[in-house]
Amino acid sequence: METGRGTSGARVAIHDATLRDGQHAVRHQLAAEQMRAYAQAADRAGVPVVEVGHGNGLGASSLQIGRARLTDDAMLAAVREALTSSQMGVFMAPGWGTGKDLRNAVDHGADVVRIAAHCTEAAVTERHLGLARDLGVEAQAVLLMSHMVGPGRLAEQCARMVGFGAQAVGIMDSAGHYLPTDVTERIRAIAAAVDVPVIFHGHNNLSLAVANSVAAVEAGATIIDACARGFGAGAGNTQLEALVAVLDRMGHRTGIDLRALLAAADIAHEQLLDELPAIDSVSLISGLTGVFSGFKLPVLAAATAAGLDPLDIFAELGRRQAVAGQEDLIAVVVRDLTVRAQ
Amino acid sequence: METGRGTSGARVAIHDATLRDGQHAVRHQLAAEQMRAYAQAADRAGVPVVEVGHGNGLGASSLQIGRARLTDDAMLAAVREALTSSQMGVFMAPGWGTGKDLRNAVDHGADVVRIAAHCTEAAVTERHLGLARDLGVEAQAVLLMSHMVGPGRLAEQCARMVGFGAQAVGIMDSAGHYLPTDVTERIRAIAAAVDVPVIFHGHNNLSLAVANSVAAVEAGATIIDACARGFGAGAGNTQLEALVAVLDRMGHRTGIDLRALLAAADIAHEQLLDELPAIDSVSLISGLTGVFSGFKLPVLAAATAAGLDPLDIFAELGRRQAVAGQEDLIAVVVRDLTVRAQ
Repeated sequence: METGRGTSGARVAIHDATLRDGQHAVRHQLAAEQMRAYAQAADRAGVPVVEVGHGNGLGASSLQIGRARLTDDAMLAAVREALTSSQMGVFMAPGWGTGKDLRNAVDHGADVVRIAAHCTEAAVTERHLGLARDLGVEAQAVLLMSHMVGPGRLAEQCARMVGFGAQAVGIMDSAGHYLPTDVTERIRAIAAAVDVPVIFHGHNNLSLAVANSVAAVEAGATIIDACARGFGAGAGNTQLEALVAVLDRMGHRTGIDLRALLAAADIAHEQLLDELPAIDSVSLISGLTGVFSGFKLPVLAAATAAGLDPLDIFAELGRRQAVAGQEDLIAVVVRDLTVRAQ
Repeated sequence: METGRGTSGARVAIHDATLRDGQHAVRHQLAAEQMRAYAQAADRAGVPVVEVGHGNGLGASSLQIGRARLTDDAMLAAVREALTSSQMGVFMAPGWGTGKDLRNAVDHGADVVRIAAHCTEAAVTERHLGLARDLGVEAQAVLLMSHMVGPGRLAEQCARMVGFGAQAVGIMDSAGHYLPTDVTERIRAIAAAVDVPVIFHGHNNLSLAVANSVAAVEAGATIIDACARGFGAGAGNTQLEALVAVLDRMGHRTGIDLRALLAAADIAHEQLLDELPAIDSVSLISGLTGVFSGFKLPVLAAATAAGLDPLDIFAELGRRQAVAGQEDLIAVVVRDLTVRAQ
């Protein structure tokens, strides 16, 4: 289709997180057949990296976070066998995943390893970035909940991760909180501070994931995460095929065949998704207040039990800068709001 | 919630098209009770204008376009009775609606009248804009499929409609084709050419409706259309509550209570929508190729019958600049593509 506007523009490497971040939308229940079908289609479309795993990454399948249908081994084997030219990516948050998980993923043929840390905790990535480099795979590092600190701090944390061996660094908008201008200033600061490719990963809580990703590209990011049909929890991730269509129109180059990508998205739609991501009121408020969307279900449960409006709980959690792992703060907030209402 | 960034910024009047453009998503089958429930909630949230009617506007209910569940009279009466402070809006495309329909809507208490024309046919709005002014209601005028011509032509057509008495003028992105830069240049040109408020109406085919609406505001538009949950055909319209949240964050003022608006959106979600709007491959391609989304169903049917890929048909319709009303072009395109494939 002649829809492009030019051939100038940036070269953008799309990092397809459908089979990893998308797992949050189906409680990590993707089966090997589903993974294989999607991975084959993404490979045919020329997607550079297909990431796979439990929604929270290597080693995260557990009673507490949620058991995946498949073991890491089974997921990695299914996707590896489906890929001919796309690289296989894995995601690991130290604490959930260990060096052993990382070695195992590389044994299974992982080409790209993402090590993730809370936005102020770059230090925790050092050991695993070093290990990934030793294992000879591409070592990338990302900062979670990155809206909680400003451009300077993010740039400094990213530079540290480059010092640890990261070959690409960047930020995730874990709460779906950013406006395009927020993304622009942060990516610019990071790109100025490091000499490796810069990564951006958006969420769609404010209906801005594609616009934010475009802002990231224009500010210097060259690796952009996205998921077919926006597959992901709640409001979902950046919609992959919409992003590629828009980047094409703008003259940026992804190397992806849009028509084949739409076929992959149709497979995701028909075979992976229970329901399409949508921006409901809770997703919108969690994005607006900057609260990690994983709080959604426990907040809804607590609100019902206490007779409170969940939006009030989210607003208060946002004010207290709650982060993942601080789910016990929900009970505290509920108590305080209940007292306040009396 | 303290989510705003400032109190400067533009004053933006939100024009809620949920009960008019949203009707396309349910084949114009909204019942009086549904309309009343949503209109009451929007009124409580302080939405300035609640538009109501058949998806194609006054007088459009017909066998050919689709019969609405209710007559114009019944819709107008239901919404009028639900509103206490919001104004009631109606939409009319001359040809489907007539002067008689317009008078009738004003008799029912319509406060704001939108007259619509294809982007190059401002002339057809003259008589009805004059009538609306004579009837003493707010007369607005919009250009459909506005991506088909450039900023200069749109500005000139808008200026003509101001000459006919329009008290606000603007553009609809009927095919969901715009990138934010497209919107910026067009709205700027229109705002420079007229001395009345400028209107923007987006669709979400490229996942950019909120970003495009924000671009419109920053370029000088002060009346923005949106629908609860993006209610609308295919990829849907600009999602109202996401737009208001984002405008709030940016320091623009809508005068809308976001919390009450979320309650209205929940009502739309639970009581109006069969399914939430989503960007499927066909919606994306119709946006990318700039083809009116009303072609979706006939194209899918024709593709199945002829054994063609519907995306090829859309691409070719886009190349031929098909507009609403030219549905017979689908058969021509199918024939040509079939011949070409042999």
